[in-house]
Formats: sequence, C-alpha cells, structure tokens
Amino acid sequence: MNIKPLGDRVVIKMLEAEEKTQSGIVLPGTAKEKPSIAEVVAVGTGILNDEEKKEEIKVGDKVIIAKYVGTEIKMDGNEFTVLALKDVLAIVE
Amino acid sequence: MNIKPLGDRVVIKMLEAEEKTQSGIVLPGTAKEKPSIAEVVAVGTGILNDEEKKEEIKVGDKVIIAKYVGTEIKMDGNEFTVLALKDVLAIVE
Amino acid sequence: MNIKPLGDRVVIKMLEAEEKTQSGIVLPGTAKEKPSIAEVVAVGTGILNDEEKKEEIKVGDKVIIAKYVGTEIKMDGNEFTVLALKDVLAIVE
Amino acid sequence: MNIKPLGDRVVIKMLEAEEKTQSGIVLPGTAKEKPSIAEVVAVGTGILNDEEKKEEIKVGDKVIIAKYVGTEIKMDGNEFTVLALKDVLAIVE
Amino acid sequence: MNIKPLGDRVVIKMLEAEEKTQSGIVLPGTAKEKPSIAEVVAVGTGILNDEEKKEEIKVGDKVIIAKYVGTEIKMDGNEFTVLALKDVLAIVE
Amino acid sequence: MNIKPLGDRVVIKMLEAEEKTQSGIVLPGTAKEKPSIAEVVAVGTGILNDEEKKEEIKVGDKVIIAKYVGTEIKMDGNEFTVLALKDVLAIVE
Amino acid sequence: MNIKPLGDRVVIKMLEAEEKTQSGIVLPGTAKEKPSIAEVVAVGTGILNDEEKKEEIKVGDKVIIAKYVGTEIKMDGNEFTVLALKDVLAIVE
Repeated sequence: MNIKPLGDRVVIKMLEAEEKTQSGIVLPGTAKEKPSIAEVVAVGTGILNDEEKKEEIKVGDKVIIAKYVGTEIKMDGNEFTVLALKDVLAIVE
Repeated sequence: MNIKPLGDRVVIKMLEAEEKTQSGIVLPGTAKEKPSIAEVVAVGTGILNDEEKKEEIKVGDKVIIAKYVGTEIKMDGNEFTVLALKDVLAIVE
Repeated sequence: MNIKPLGDRVVIKMLEAEEKTQSGIVLPGTAKEKPSIAEVVAVGTGILNDEEKKEEIKVGDKVIIAKYVGTEIKMDGNEFTVLALKDVLAIVE
Repeated sequence: MNIKPLGDRVVIKMLEAEEKTQSGIVLPGTAKEKPSIAEVVAVGTGILNDEEKKEEIKVGDKVIIAKYVGTEIKMDGNEFTVLALKDVLAIVE
Repeated sequence: MNIKPLGDRVVIKMLEAEEKTQSGIVLPGTAKEKPSIAEVVAVGTGILNDEEKKEEIKVGDKVIIAKYVGTEIKMDGNEFTVLALKDVLAIVE
Repeated sequence: MNIKPLGDRVVIKMLEAEEKTQSGIVLPGTAKEKPSIAEVVAVGTGILNDEEKKEEIKVGDKVIIAKYVGTEIKMDGNEFTVLALKDVLAIVE
Repeated sequence: MNIKPLGDRVVIKMLEAEEKTQSGIVLPGTAKEKPSIAEVVAVGTGILNDEEKKEEIKVGDKVIIAKYVGTEIKMDGNEFTVLALKDVLAIVE
C-alpha cells in the first residue's frame, strides 16, 4: 500500500528516540515531548513537478519539522504524518 | 440523483471501518474517532477543467482528508462530504 | 418586484422539507436544523458576465450551500438568501 | 451641502418602514431590527471611473445591504451611511 | 514646523463642534462622542505622486473619517491625526 | 559598533522629552506615556536599493511612529528600536 | 552533522551573555530575559539562490532577531534556532 501526497505535501515517519540519540540530535524539553525529527517517505507531485522544490527534499531525507503541524495517519501498523513542504524547517545531513 | 460540486471541490463518501481494517489503514486514537479515509464520488468542474488538478484526483480514488473540513450532506440515505481539493491530503493506492 | 444581486452573488430560496424528502436529500441532524438545499432565483451580473462562472450556475438550479452564510431577506412574503457564489458547494441534478 | 465618497464607496439613506411595507420588502425578525433597505444618494469616484462598477449601481437605486457595515453620519438633519460597494448585496428593482 | 506623512497617509485636524453645527453636519449619538469631521492639513508623497489619488484629496478638504483610526499627535499646541487615505470615507463639499 | 537593518526596516532612537518640548511636539496623554518622536539612525538596504523608498526617509530624519511597534534593543548603553518603514507615520521637518 | 535550512530560513546559535556584554549589546529588561543576539550558522538555499537575499545575510553574521520566533533544536549538545529570514531584524557589525 502506498500514500501519494497531493500538492506540495510530504509524508514523513517520526524517527525513534534511539535513532535520534545516536545522531546526537534531540529536541529541548522533557523526554515526553514529541520528537520532531523524521524521515521523508513520500513526496507530493506538486514538489516532483517543480524543479526548485524537487531539489530541496526527497524520499529518505532526515527532516526537522515544526511542532503541531500536519495530520497523523496509521498505515500497516506504522504512524505517519502528512504535512506541507513549507512546514519542513530543515534537512539534517 | 447526482451531486455536481462547484469550483475546486470534491464529494467524498467515508469508507466503513471494515474496509479500512482490510486495507490496513486506520487513524490513531479511539475507535470512536471519525474515520478520515474516503472514496471520491464526484469531482468539481474547476478540477476537471484544469490539466494539472485533473491528474491529481478522480472519481474512485481513496483519499485521506484533514479532520473537521467540508460540509456533510445526506443523499439517498447515504452520507457524503463536500470539501475543497486543497483539504484532500493524499491518495492511497 | 425583482432582486438583482451585485457581483458574484446569487439569490436563493430554501426548499420546503417536503420537496427535499421527495428528492431524497436531507441534511444530517435533527429535523429542527435549518435545511441547506435551495433553488437559485437570481444570479449576479459578475457571474453572468464571466463565461466560466456562467456555466457553473443558473436560475432554477438546486444547490447545496454552506451553513451560516449569506444574508436573509423577505420579499413579497417569501424568504430569500443573498450569498456569494463561492459559498454554493454543489448543484444537485 | 454634498458628500463625495472616496474610492469604491457609496452613501445611502435608509428607507422608512412605511416605504418598505409598501414595496412588500421587509427584513426577517422583530420590528425593532434595523432596516437594511436603502436608497443610494452618492457614488464614489472609484466607481464612477470604472466602467464595470458604474453599471452596477447609481444614485437613486434601492439597495439591500449587509447588516453592521458602514459608518453612519448625520447631515442636514438626515442620517446617512457611508459603506463600501462590496457591502451592497443586491439592487431591488 | 511641518509634518510630512509617509506613503498613502494624510494628516488631519478635527474641526470644532461649533463649525460642524454651522455646516449642519454632526455625528449621531451623544454630544460627548468624538467628532469625525476634519480638515486635511498634509498629504503624503505616496498620494501626491499618484495621479488618481491626488485627485481624490488635497490640503484644505473637509473629510469624514472612520472612528478609531489613525494616530493622534500634538504639535504647536494643536492636536492632529495621522491616518491612511483608505480610512478617509468621504469629502464634504 | 553598527546596526544594519534588513529589508525595509529602519533603526530609530527615541528623542528625549526635553527635545520634544523644545520643538513643540508632544504626544497626547500623561507624561508617563512613551514618546513617539524619534530620530532615524540606520536605514535598511531594502530601502536604500529602492528609488522611491529612499526618497522618503534617511538617517537623521525626525519621525513619528505608531505606538507598540518594533523591537527594542540596547547598544553601547543607548536604547534603539528596529521597525518596519511602513510603521513610520510621518517625518517632522 | 549538518543542518540545511529549507527555503528562506536560517539557522542561528544564540550568543552567550558574556559575549554580548563584551560587545556592549544587551536587550532591555531583566537578566532572565532570553537574549536575542545570535550568530548565523546556516543559510537556506532559497536565500543562497537569490542574489538580493544572499547579499543580506551569510554564515558568521551577528544578528538581532525578533522575540518568540523560530523553532529551537538541539544538535551535538548545542541549541540552535531555525527561523525565517524575515524574522531577522538587523545585522550587527
């Protein structure tokens, strides 16, 4: 099964806390705060069809996202978030 | 009887919980939460007349929609929702 | 007496509950909720002068409108609503 | 003395209740509600200089206006309202 | 000393109540309400450099302004208001 | 040390109450109110690179600003405010 | 590890209070207030690809930012803020 985001949206999967500790990147605050580092799993056609946007983000990128944005969905037992490209703050390399 | 949405709107029909379990897609939260997976039953002329938008969505597509959007109507005993294309987050294939 | 809506507005007349039951279309909720199916009785010159908008709506169309939109007026003993074309969600055929 | 509205504004004078009963047009609600039928007494230069807008409204037109819009003034013992053309809903002929 | 408003702003001086009674124009409400008739004392360069706007307003014009707009200042013992041209409703001739 | 405002911003320094009394300009209200007359100490490159904006304001200009706008900073013991050109109401000459 | 901000965003690192005292720049208020002077550590591609924006800001610049803007992240034990270029008020030289 596949999710194809519409317009300038991406689908991301939040990374587990362990992964984030490994990479040395954590968000400030208590451990109960929702992590904001994620991996891109799908990119909308509005992005794929735009030369400039296509260079900014691609499947597999690790991204930092703004809090409280996007819509969460569950698929095949995993949780994903659909959000607008403009709510992706940065890519971690 | 037929519903013809105006402008960039679509008409969708929420899918039953059974169908969603089959497809493995459910929304997070309690079982009482309103499901957000739906099937497109009508597409507005504003979409049909726009080459780019027409490729994004068509009747029969399974879509994920943002919560709390659109207007519900009942027709021939079924419930439908009329909503803007921009509130369709993604298509599930 | 005649009402000529300005700009991209239309004037509609809410249909009686009986008519709606006949056509099989009702809004969800209690019987006390305000019906949202109406008939177009006048179309603004902003619509008549625009080829694309003129094809979308015309006098006599049965329309579904968003709740809580438009301004109600009484004329010759009947109640009408003046509202923007963008608040007409769909046409029922 | 003369009022010359700026931009796309018009000046209107609310019609007396008697006139409205005569013409058969009243607003829904109690008799204490402010009437919303008025006569145009001045049209702004932004309208007069625009071919399309000039055709929509002219001095002497009977108009239906949205509630709670415009600014009231008194001149020579009469009350007038200055409001934007976009807040004039329709013309009654 | 001189005030030169920036952009599409004007500087106005509220007229005394006596003047207004003379001219027959008063605002509705109690006598304690702030008067809204004023004289233009300076016009911004954004207006002076625009042929269309320049024709709408000039120093010396008597104007009706919306309530609660603009910023008040005192200069040489007089009170003035700096406000945007769009908040000038009409000119009284 | 130097502040270089970005875009269409300016940096201003509020003038002392004494200066304002001298020039005869004071703001209405109690003496505790924050003064709104200031001197421009830096002009953003977005203004310097725009012929029209460059003519409107320059370092050394005495300006009247809207209340509650801009961000205050301290530098070398002095207080400054960084604000957008659009929040400068007028220049006092 | 590297952060690559998307669009017209920059990543900044707040400067320690000691540094700021040295440079003579502090924000008004109590010592507990969050400092608003920072150093740019990364510049988004939307800025790098725009000739005009590229001249306004670069890595290493000391900047003054508006309060309460941006999203904080921790990386390699340091705290950073991702924010839009439009929220950078000025550069301190």
